[in-house]
Amino acid sequence: MTKIVQTSRPNRFGDLFEMLTDRGRALLRWRDPAGQVTAPPGLSDMGELLLSRRGEASGVALARALVAAFEEADEPKRLEFLETLGDRFGPDPKAVERALAAVQQDAGSVEAIEALHTAAEPRRQELFRRLNLAPGGTAALVRMREELLRHLKDNPALRRVDSDFAHLFASWFNRGFLVLRHIDWNTPAAILEKIIRYEAVHAIQNWDDLRNRLQPTDRRCYGFFHPQLVDEPLIFVEVALTKAIPDTVAPLLDLNRKPIEAERASTAVFYSISNTQRGLAGVSFGNFLIKQVVEELKAELPNIQTFVTLSPVPGFAAWLARAREGGELLDDNLRAALAPLDQPGWHADPDRAGALREPLLTAAAIYFLRARDNKGRAVDPVARFHLGNGACLERLNFLGDVSANGLKQSHGLMVNYLYDPNRIEANHEAFAERAEIAASEAVRRHLPDAQTTTKKEKP
Amino acid sequence: MTKIVQTSRPNRFGDLFEMLTDRGRALLRWRDPAGQVTAPPGLSDMGELLLSRRGEASGVALARALVAAFEEADEPKRLEFLETLGDRFGPDPKAVERALAAVQQDAGSVEAIEALHTAAEPRRQELFRRLNLAPGGTAALVRMREELLRHLKDNPALRRVDSDFAHLFASWFNRGFLVLRHIDWNTPAAILEKIIRYEAVHAIQNWDDLRNRLQPTDRRCYGFFHPQLVDEPLIFVEVALTKAIPDTVAPLLDLNRKPIEAERASTAVFYSISNTQRGLAGVSFGNFLIKQVVEELKAELPNIQTFVTLSPVPGFAAWLARAREGGELLDDNLRAALAPLDQPGWHADPDRAGALREPLLTAAAIYFLRARDNKGRAVDPVARFHLGNGACLERLNFLGDVSANGLKQSHGLMVNYLYDPNRIEANHEAFAERAEIAASEAVRRHLPDAQTTTKKEKP
Amino acid sequence: MTKIVQTSRPNRFGDLFEMLTDRGRALLRWRDPAGQVTAPPGLSDMGELLLSRRGEASGVALARALVAAFEEADEPKRLEFLETLGDRFGPDPKAVERALAAVQQDAGSVEAIEALHTAAEPRRQELFRRLNLAPGGTAALVRMREELLRHLKDNPALRRVDSDFAHLFASWFNRGFLVLRHIDWNTPAAILEKIIRYEAVHAIQNWDDLRNRLQPTDRRCYGFFHPQLVDEPLIFVEVALTKAIPDTVAPLLDLNRKPIEAERASTAVFYSISNTQRGLAGVSFGNFLIKQVVEELKAELPNIQTFVTLSPVPGFAAWLARAREGGELLDDNLRAALAPLDQPGWHADPDRAGALREPLLTAAAIYFLRARDNKGRAVDPVARFHLGNGACLERLNFLGDVSANGLKQSHGLMVNYLYDPNRIEANHEAFAERAEIAASEAVRRHLPDAQTTTKKEKP
Amino acid sequence: MTKIVQTSRPNRFGDLFEMLTDRGRALLRWRDPAGQVTAPPGLSDMGELLLSRRGEASGVALARALVAAFEEADEPKRLEFLETLGDRFGPDPKAVERALAAVQQDAGSVEAIEALHTAAEPRRQELFRRLNLAPGGTAALVRMREELLRHLKDNPALRRVDSDFAHLFASWFNRGFLVLRHIDWNTPAAILEKIIRYEAVHAIQNWDDLRNRLQPTDRRCYGFFHPQLVDEPLIFVEVALTKAIPDTVAPLLDLNRKPIEAERASTAVFYSISNTQRGLAGVSFGNFLIKQVVEELKAELPNIQTFVTLSPVPGFAAWLARAREGGELLDDNLRAALAPLDQPGWHADPDRAGALREPLLTAAAIYFLRARDNKGRAVDPVARFHLGNGACLERLNFLGDVSANGLKQSHGLMVNYLYDPNRIEANHEAFAERAEIAASEAVRRHLPDAQTTTKKEKP
Repeated sequence: MTKIVQTSRPNRFGDLFEMLTDRGRALLRWRDPAGQVTAPPGLSDMGELLLSRRGEASGVALARALVAAFEEADEPKRLEFLETLGDRFGPDPKAVERALAAVQQDAGSVEAIEALHTAAEPRRQELFRRLNLAPGGTAALVRMREELLRHLKDNPALRRVDSDFAHLFASWFNRGFLVLRHIDWNTPAAILEKIIRYEAVHAIQNWDDLRNRLQPTDRRCYGFFHPQLVDEPLIFVEVALTKAIPDTVAPLLDLNRKPIEAERASTAVFYSISNTQRGLAGVSFGNFLIKQVVEELKAELPNIQTFVTLSPVPGFAAWLARAREGGELLDDNLRAALAPLDQPGWHADPDRAGALREPLLTAAAIYFLRARDNKGRAVDPVARFHLGNGACLERLNFLGDVSANGLKQSHGLMVNYLYDPNRIEANHEAFAERAEIAASEAVRRHLPDAQTTTKKEKP
Repeated sequence: MTKIVQTSRPNRFGDLFEMLTDRGRALLRWRDPAGQVTAPPGLSDMGELLLSRRGEASGVALARALVAAFEEADEPKRLEFLETLGDRFGPDPKAVERALAAVQQDAGSVEAIEALHTAAEPRRQELFRRLNLAPGGTAALVRMREELLRHLKDNPALRRVDSDFAHLFASWFNRGFLVLRHIDWNTPAAILEKIIRYEAVHAIQNWDDLRNRLQPTDRRCYGFFHPQLVDEPLIFVEVALTKAIPDTVAPLLDLNRKPIEAERASTAVFYSISNTQRGLAGVSFGNFLIKQVVEELKAELPNIQTFVTLSPVPGFAAWLARAREGGELLDDNLRAALAPLDQPGWHADPDRAGALREPLLTAAAIYFLRARDNKGRAVDPVARFHLGNGACLERLNFLGDVSANGLKQSHGLMVNYLYDPNRIEANHEAFAERAEIAASEAVRRHLPDAQTTTKKEKP
Repeated sequence: MTKIVQTSRPNRFGDLFEMLTDRGRALLRWRDPAGQVTAPPGLSDMGELLLSRRGEASGVALARALVAAFEEADEPKRLEFLETLGDRFGPDPKAVERALAAVQQDAGSVEAIEALHTAAEPRRQELFRRLNLAPGGTAALVRMREELLRHLKDNPALRRVDSDFAHLFASWFNRGFLVLRHIDWNTPAAILEKIIRYEAVHAIQNWDDLRNRLQPTDRRCYGFFHPQLVDEPLIFVEVALTKAIPDTVAPLLDLNRKPIEAERASTAVFYSISNTQRGLAGVSFGNFLIKQVVEELKAELPNIQTFVTLSPVPGFAAWLARAREGGELLDDNLRAALAPLDQPGWHADPDRAGALREPLLTAAAIYFLRARDNKGRAVDPVARFHLGNGACLERLNFLGDVSANGLKQSHGLMVNYLYDPNRIEANHEAFAERAEIAASEAVRRHLPDAQTTTKKEKP
Repeated sequence: MTKIVQTSRPNRFGDLFEMLTDRGRALLRWRDPAGQVTAPPGLSDMGELLLSRRGEASGVALARALVAAFEEADEPKRLEFLETLGDRFGPDPKAVERALAAVQQDAGSVEAIEALHTAAEPRRQELFRRLNLAPGGTAALVRMREELLRHLKDNPALRRVDSDFAHLFASWFNRGFLVLRHIDWNTPAAILEKIIRYEAVHAIQNWDDLRNRLQPTDRRCYGFFHPQLVDEPLIFVEVALTKAIPDTVAPLLDLNRKPIEAERASTAVFYSISNTQRGLAGVSFGNFLIKQVVEELKAELPNIQTFVTLSPVPGFAAWLARAREGGELLDDNLRAALAPLDQPGWHADPDRAGALREPLLTAAAIYFLRARDNKGRAVDPVARFHLGNGACLERLNFLGDVSANGLKQSHGLMVNYLYDPNRIEANHEAFAERAEIAASEAVRRHLPDAQTTTKKEKP
């Protein structure tokens, strides 16, 4: 009696198995044009078929069969197909030649240029669009690129294929097509287990740990979803609502802490943000996600005035090791003062830790504000992400993360980036165009020769 | 602006906390009729108020306040209120007196009898109905009875209150108001954690164990829900789809087993059924649940022909111990043959186990078919449930459950009850009216003096 | 692949037809205890069967069959069954006799009284509860009572049956089980067509008229729904958001009016409230609905401070006709001044209308504040509803409704009742206990000998 | 507190108004980089801004503002913007020049060709993608193209812009992103009123007519929806389930006909298919829709074996008028026999109609099988659609539609196209590659010199 055609939830429970079954069937049912069951052609030939007349009439079935055949093939066969995408499915040479001739004949004709643009489109782009006709096609294409990315180093020729994937996905996963969803303890387990799996910053130990991040009144989690990848968050952020900007992460994750009422919070802390789909590398979601969550929280909880991260500093220790060995950024006094860092266990000894506090924060200020990588960019990848989004480096937190990993990658340092809606745009422009790093007075003060009146640091 | 934050269910998350807060507020806001904030009255006085004129105008607020006050009160106060329900909120004596007089005056008048019925309704019934006006009132009443049940032994006077709860809940939780829902890996975690908590037959170890019972293609779980207890299954059943009637439970729960396609199954095995709400004791759901699930599965998977349980035998070992000590049911030969049961570890020794097989199955046949408790009923509670539903005892499974608990309660015995739609009604009537126990030929054959032509055993 | 067992929406599209088909099947499949297909028994015998052992095992099937048989029977047969409910399905005489004897033996025993209450329960109550097991059983029972109500005048004996229906429905349709839903232009058409059909105050002409009441930003509609009557609003209220208390209804319903932004409204006007289920007569929803909607609107639109109705005065013209003929309420001057009412078309003539304004409003003030019906109650049924809810008579609107019906029933008079959350409780108590009518100063001033300092009018 | 106001979809209702309000706000809040409120720039400058650095940081806000400004601008301003899209937002000339140079330098380099492809992408494509960031951006872009299409005839330069729209929409509205939904009487009214508005074949008179096409058990309606255009069906098809292939449309639409049970139908008749979004012209949905609905119906109702249309013949009368005037397709006998067509009312006179039957069907067979338009294609646009999808011309129905319009456009002729899943692919290829028209023996027999053994007609 139920009349809802639920094609909209293609990958519900039991899906993988079902998909495997379907695949088998799609291939078993392969027929030649005369309708006779026959062995299916190779992957590339199926690709050609999908681009042909027959692909117009039977696009869905052919796309399904090609997706199935690709996923059932062994790795060498799959790699071979990906390589073929790079050569056999590039632009149509004759069409390009004709279009080039037209451009040369009529130099300056915008029509001719635009016709050339069209003629030079690699044929694999249309192939990707047709593959998307298959049930689950979008997800299959994302997985296909994920595999391709693994081969990229060894197969530079695949770069062209990758660039078409990237172009297509940037269009298909445009933020306008994404849906922001609140993830909480009423979210289906099938999604929650992916949160556990994908969490990249502070690993989720088990379901109790997960619940502790989702269910209390002062915790939130939001993710972007794409309508075609129903149970797959593309990116998600975990938020703590607090009464002050936190300087260490452990209390936030404590299973025994006492929640506060959300209405009493003044601060929203983005303490973890994780991308989930390697196949969507290069498509930018984080920027949009943070800004949208700021909007949501402002609307729901007007008392929240401060939007801030509590972030790791993954590049600090490695950079500091190099900087202590040489270069101009650290002077000799500072180098000497940092020497105790090499003694294990310093962080647990109040005296030694106390003595290291100022030197380490000075080194950190230099790291963020003066150090540059060989492309002239801020060294820290997390810093580049948040500063590029228009955030400002608000505070350095000495011994913010004394886990083994925290000590190893950043000598325990954590930082807060502040998202101030009124300054995001200016910060972003200054960062993107003039490499200016927005930092608070409190951070700048740690520079060896701090000029506290200067707001921006130009390298 | 895009408002599509699909908070999966915005008003539930953090509920308990919210409710506690609300309660505080409800009490803090207590006002006298003149609108002045004042200390709230005692629980019983609030009950009287709720039954008064003021309860008509402000029923929702008063009900909310009484629920809040009850749940915030300490245990002695709560017990006192439950006791007051028994005396102060019984039938209105004057109304009963008048109605009795009318009956005596006009003996045989149905009108008078029915008026007497109405007059003799305990006032707490209307109180319960008005308490139900509070948000979350239904759940609060179920919890209230749960508490009452704990005091019942020591307070026989509470039995009257309990009987009104039971009467009301039988009406409110009528099967016509329940909703059957499929519970799977897309079910909200808030419900799934209750499945873990409430599973009463084969404990669920963790979320992996849970997923293994929900997600594979050959597993199903169904529960009854009431619209007012949204996240609370009232009862649920776990089902395995198999190719044959299973005789042991371990392979069903094995995390490493290989699922089969649901379409290839011939048999649905109800291997666990759990009630969840102690406060709904006596309201019968299991019968309806099993029959509805049979209907659902028949419609979804026409290949499934056999509907069977794999059930524990919780009363067997205790009964056998008594029967071995004396009485007429076992003869001396059988007693002797059963002696090795007393040697620990027998089940793991093929020789000893082999020797015990027949004697134990004979004893089991006697247990099911001939033994009776002091009310003249079948001894085994699980047997009473399934036989009372119209099932038939299909098979005895020697060493079906060799877990510590299985050995302890039933020397490892498990049984299958068969639900044959065509025989359910006749089996039920025979069992209910004539205490006849439906059992297969295979089971009867184990009786010491089996007459295989007799289909039914009359004690 | 869809695994949602949607038993929760039993009556989706095509339902009626399907139900009829099902019915046919249920009856065609009637089997005797031996399993032979046979002619189904009469309705009353099916009722007995449903209350028997067989009803325990096969309750759902038997309930379905009885519902089907009742709805397929012709009217005389149905009436006969309803009458049988009154005699054959009353209290069990023997059980009553025993319980009465116990009461007499042990006078004053509460246990005995309560046992008598249980024994005296008419058997039809259990029958109704079992009928509710049928799919669509709740709706079928509501229809059954609707039919019964039509026969009530001619069959006073049915009154007993009706009183059990009423008792059961008051419990099942307890406000705690109802769901408030916003009805708007995104509501399924199957529900909306019922809004058109059931609207009882200002008839909805067509779908454009309906949209004009639902879709604009300054219009709202809310209804109570019961989980078992999915597509059936039980009661609904139409609300206009305005900048002032309106005095006529026409502008509210005007298809060409310009909506205002909801955020700019100061006043919520309940201009129509309609019950829909005749079979639920006597179960009170309106009081709860209005108060809940007030809560919702306060939360959504904090600018709204005034909650008011624009109501018809259905009893005014009839009462006035009688009062003009005699009695003490009107004096001779007033009678004379009201004479032009008898001339058709007076309302369209500014002079005549102007002359009638004060006399008519005076008569209206008397009607509301002094007139009483033969039970000593306020004469106007709408007034009794709103005053009983704790509202206050805020304003009399001369020529508020000049439609033919408006002129006929109330000489064009409309009124506003004000729901002031702070005064609702006091108003209700004063009205219920002392028959005091809450009215504004502005209304009282129209009384012939108004003492404007008295707030309440005691008749 | 219970918050279960189930506003059916809270953020949609009143949408248009809300959007207008939002627009106003977006523009009122325009700020210069220094944060000062200022007058917003012109549309093209806003476009440049959106493509700039600032667009990276504030894409959503800028996109929203540009969409708002465009929709608030007057028509000349909007047209001016569309024209600017054509010139100012074409490919970046310098980038193209560099890429062309690279191609010439390294002839045959695929990398260079592909880099040229990228360089030559019109900048408006990225602009469109960024506009899509705005809430409601996708819908706004579709409306923008709808407006552009109206200007296309007078502004051939807009053709380039249109081609980028078409390219983008073909990717965004790829069938893999569409959701098939059953439209029935439980569908929200907001969608249903669009069905009424958009129905293009047999106009829907009113809501009763609509219900008659959706609610009966033997009627179905399906549409494709895009996740970003929630309440807008992109295309929908109306289906009747029947016991035979129908030859006239009137009985299908009759309000008084008696429905049959869906399970008894052998035939699914697609009697109306309507595209709704002029802005999506050229993106093909119909082919996929019909095939998917065939799959759905086969799964739901296995008894249905025949999938067929009942279609108008919109080009027949006009073609016949020309063919009767001259040309080789009709011979003189046929011309003479067709003469009575010119007498009004012939269809209502059995004698005259009878005499015209054969000549008209012969002319129709010629029209479908032999006539070609000046591009060498089948003349009839509906025929081109269905034959292009792989359907076969199954039957000619004399006087299938005697409405005024039916007589005018096709002398009352209707036809059935048959979708035979086993022949769709072959039919499509034959039609697309060799212009062969698949037609049944029954149709071919009407040709003047029918050779019934030939299956295909090659022109």
